[in-house]
Amino acid sequence: MKRLLLPLLALILPTPALADALIDNVNGITIDKDGRIVRFNGLVMTSDGKVAKLLDRKDKRPERPDFKTDGKGRTLMPGIIDAHGHVMGVGFQELILDLSDTRSLAEVQAKVAAYVQANPNRRWIIGRGWNQENWGLGRFPTAAELDAAVADRPVWLTRIDGHAGWANSAAMTAAGITAKSIAPTGGKIEKTATGAPSGVFIDAAMPLVEKILPEPLPRERDLALVKAQQTLLSYGITTIADMGTTLDDWMTFRRAGDAGRLNMRILSYAGGVDAMVQIGGPGPSPWLYEDRLKLVGVKLYSDGALGSRGAWLKQPYHDSPRERGLGFLTDAQLRNLMSRAAMDGFQVAVHAIGDQANAQLLDAIDELVQSYPGDRRWRIEHAQIIDPVDLPRLGRNGIIASMQPVHQTSDRLMAEARLGPNRLAGAYAWQTILKDGGKLAFGSDTPVESPDPFAGIAAAFTREDAKGEPFGGWRPEDRVSREQALAGFTSWGAYAGFAEDRLGRLEPGMRADFILIDQDPLMATPQEIRATKVLETWVNGRPVWTRK
Amino acid sequence: MKRLLLPLLALILPTPALADALIDNVNGITIDKDGRIVRFNGLVMTSDGKVAKLLDRKDKRPERPDFKTDGKGRTLMPGIIDAHGHVMGVGFQELILDLSDTRSLAEVQAKVAAYVQANPNRRWIIGRGWNQENWGLGRFPTAAELDAAVADRPVWLTRIDGHAGWANSAAMTAAGITAKSIAPTGGKIEKTATGAPSGVFIDAAMPLVEKILPEPLPRERDLALVKAQQTLLSYGITTIADMGTTLDDWMTFRRAGDAGRLNMRILSYAGGVDAMVQIGGPGPSPWLYEDRLKLVGVKLYSDGALGSRGAWLKQPYHDSPRERGLGFLTDAQLRNLMSRAAMDGFQVAVHAIGDQANAQLLDAIDELVQSYPGDRRWRIEHAQIIDPVDLPRLGRNGIIASMQPVHQTSDRLMAEARLGPNRLAGAYAWQTILKDGGKLAFGSDTPVESPDPFAGIAAAFTREDAKGEPFGGWRPEDRVSREQALAGFTSWGAYAGFAEDRLGRLEPGMRADFILIDQDPLMATPQEIRATKVLETWVNGRPVWTRK
Repeated sequence: MKRLLLPLLALILPTPALADALIDNVNGITIDKDGRIVRFNGLVMTSDGKVAKLLDRKDKRPERPDFKTDGKGRTLMPGIIDAHGHVMGVGFQELILDLSDTRSLAEVQAKVAAYVQANPNRRWIIGRGWNQENWGLGRFPTAAELDAAVADRPVWLTRIDGHAGWANSAAMTAAGITAKSIAPTGGKIEKTATGAPSGVFIDAAMPLVEKILPEPLPRERDLALVKAQQTLLSYGITTIADMGTTLDDWMTFRRAGDAGRLNMRILSYAGGVDAMVQIGGPGPSPWLYEDRLKLVGVKLYSDGALGSRGAWLKQPYHDSPRERGLGFLTDAQLRNLMSRAAMDGFQVAVHAIGDQANAQLLDAIDELVQSYPGDRRWRIEHAQIIDPVDLPRLGRNGIIASMQPVHQTSDRLMAEARLGPNRLAGAYAWQTILKDGGKLAFGSDTPVESPDPFAGIAAAFTREDAKGEPFGGWRPEDRVSREQALAGFTSWGAYAGFAEDRLGRLEPGMRADFILIDQDPLMATPQEIRATKVLETWVNGRPVWTRK
Repeated sequence: MKRLLLPLLALILPTPALADALIDNVNGITIDKDGRIVRFNGLVMTSDGKVAKLLDRKDKRPERPDFKTDGKGRTLMPGIIDAHGHVMGVGFQELILDLSDTRSLAEVQAKVAAYVQANPNRRWIIGRGWNQENWGLGRFPTAAELDAAVADRPVWLTRIDGHAGWANSAAMTAAGITAKSIAPTGGKIEKTATGAPSGVFIDAAMPLVEKILPEPLPRERDLALVKAQQTLLSYGITTIADMGTTLDDWMTFRRAGDAGRLNMRILSYAGGVDAMVQIGGPGPSPWLYEDRLKLVGVKLYSDGALGSRGAWLKQPYHDSPRERGLGFLTDAQLRNLMSRAAMDGFQVAVHAIGDQANAQLLDAIDELVQSYPGDRRWRIEHAQIIDPVDLPRLGRNGIIASMQPVHQTSDRLMAEARLGPNRLAGAYAWQTILKDGGKLAFGSDTPVESPDPFAGIAAAFTREDAKGEPFGGWRPEDRVSREQALAGFTSWGAYAGFAEDRLGRLEPGMRADFILIDQDPLMATPQEIRATKVLETWVNGRPVWTRK
């Protein structure tokens, strides 16, 4: 057939490129490969989901597209790439008790009690999202305070940042926790005045309870992935870097891909080297499902988080002078894990929040670049508190700081309390990192924060929170420009995942992933940007989410 | 483009069916869906690897096929479906020491010593394929006898049937085996006269040593799968039921599929329900990679094997009157596992060799068909020794006996020794099972036996071994016909894996999987059939193996 028709085709068609779909009359924005804004009025897509051409107002339209839609002048921009999130966490959050909007301990107690009444058959009550900083409590809550709400079955509630868990007495009994229980290295069991476990478990101590939680069923995992995709697509996220993919997560992604139910793109970073080897075998996976899934690398942890004082600092915490946080790995352990990944071509992404953790990681990278040269794109996840003397080291090795602009606004007061006034010069230091030659990629850390990228874009170029505080921005010298904020959530995120050849920008040959929104982020005020509504989300040249 | 060209296509082409490839001038044989032989002279295939049409000598040929090949009168038959094998085992066998051709203990010792000399850097010496029945030893070998060959590093050699392992003293020391070690239920540690472990570990005792073997690297797994495919395709096997797929096996299959290196079809049965859930999640996988891979169900074990006296018998072993073999599971355990699989739509395949194990399984199926009605295709793997009173029970529930014809000829003398002369009426009872309404599917159990299906076809319709013994066949009433032998290795194997809608026969719409061979198995003598050479193996309408 090919032999027969090809000469005919040449006669019939003016060009061999086939114009399969056209979205016209849009306020189109993209960033080009040099970081410049490009505006356009129409977008032509191929039938296999790629961009064929950007059209100016005066350009000739394809004569007979298979499909044509009128953008009605709305703003069209590349789909958001969230460089750091937890896909299954987003989904499970929809399936478990959400405490992220609670404003007092009493409100938590009431919400837990009501949930138990509504779900009388649940053996375990599982929830997440609490933040004692919002309750004016000045301390962690206790098991006894949770027992007051539910005493007859175990309860386990994880903190908003995922770095602490709160158990009731039934859960501690079920897990065999007693005054003699010892926290493993990198973890802490909070104690009452009498030395008994108070109910809160930090970082590496969390598995003492979590190991006995019932595992989700595969059906529940599949449902969670459906929910996660709906949520993420509704915020315009077409690609997410999944930081800490477990084997079960990966199998869930593949089931969705195999069944044609994977509607967005996941750049997967395995949770540790064991999962990395089980999932990827001898190296990263190929691009799967028309570039919707790829195991890119591994996610490692070098410390905890600031909120729970798990972040590893060079000097003691300002608000707890006997603590310096927790280093999870020795220098040798960290290098061995990174080396194990790098030797097989996996990209390495390491969670490092405190300045000591960042320094340890920068030392490790300095050494590893000797053994593993070439384009490695070492990633630091969060990179929140860096000693100013260490900041220039990111640029030297082309390191990517994968940062979450909203963390800066959420954490500001807490960071000031934890670090005091004199150790903030390298905190959330976006512009300094760029100026020193480092790379950035922006994300949300969802479900730790809302996945909404427009809050992140506004925070990135203002360093003001949703209320506009502090006016003029917190350490405003580290703001990025609007264009850089957009790039951080699109083209830079693609680069950070070795996907800049196919994702993050709209130009011929790239995947046609884009969103239609009700604001022009280059023109709108920060408040308007925060209120941006995604109207349609397109992946691979097809609409996959539409606002009702 | 579609809109534009379709009217033109209608004018140009005589029919909308496209003749993409033609293999002509063959002695074509297939079995139709009613089990009748169909002969043909040419085969037309579509570009997506399916059969378009079978051609008689007088039929008009497609005028302009994209591809045309002359079969030169050779015999073409459907690709072999091996209903029971171990894909990764076939591959690893190529990578480890092979002892299957050894004829004496001294020969084993010499071969092991030579292998160590050739592989001085291997920490562990791993081999397989020994069979003390071939050595005239009258007993199992000992660790001391292996120490005589290699004492300075651990050695672990598995028996030909995979149901026993033989360690040297270094391996037992490394595994912490002492006179106090206790075999788990379903296993046995062979002892010396003084009560010390003698070096041989039966069935469930094998993991006592195997748990400390170094795991193969992903690269070694990938290489093993390449080797396995080469071996199986060279014997004309285009589809194999992989009995006992582990998670690592599955990930290896998927890596090959993702990379376009899966050249044959694997019907996967997970090794146990934990692997089943991890691989399949809430149910069987879809067909993947153009029908090259599917998780169909689960493989369970209810007993061991005859050779190691692990098969579970109703009466004691004739040659060891204090033993009745090993039942691996209680009735309740077996039913629970089968139920767990069946409730989520996984097919259940249970290894049962002894008459007691088969009776236990038939009882379980009798009960389970109440809870899980419909087309379940319960499979008994091996089904070697069935009490004649139980044989009619297979037909009642449409059970599939998945049997290996060559086992009958290999095991004949051993089975007579194990069971004595009066308990053989239900041994390898192929024709009786068919006559009672049961179903058969034939396989090789490779690497336990050679994967060569032609040895199996000859054994199936003669019940004579390669030397033609016993003349006229062993219990010849249980021979099948030639046509049934062919069906057993093609269409019945497809049915046994819920694949009869796409595999096992050559007719329009089925996958174009076939082989070109140098004998006509419907005309040749048994000796000629055993000598059959596969010349080419085609999968999905493409040649994937050619004899050099």
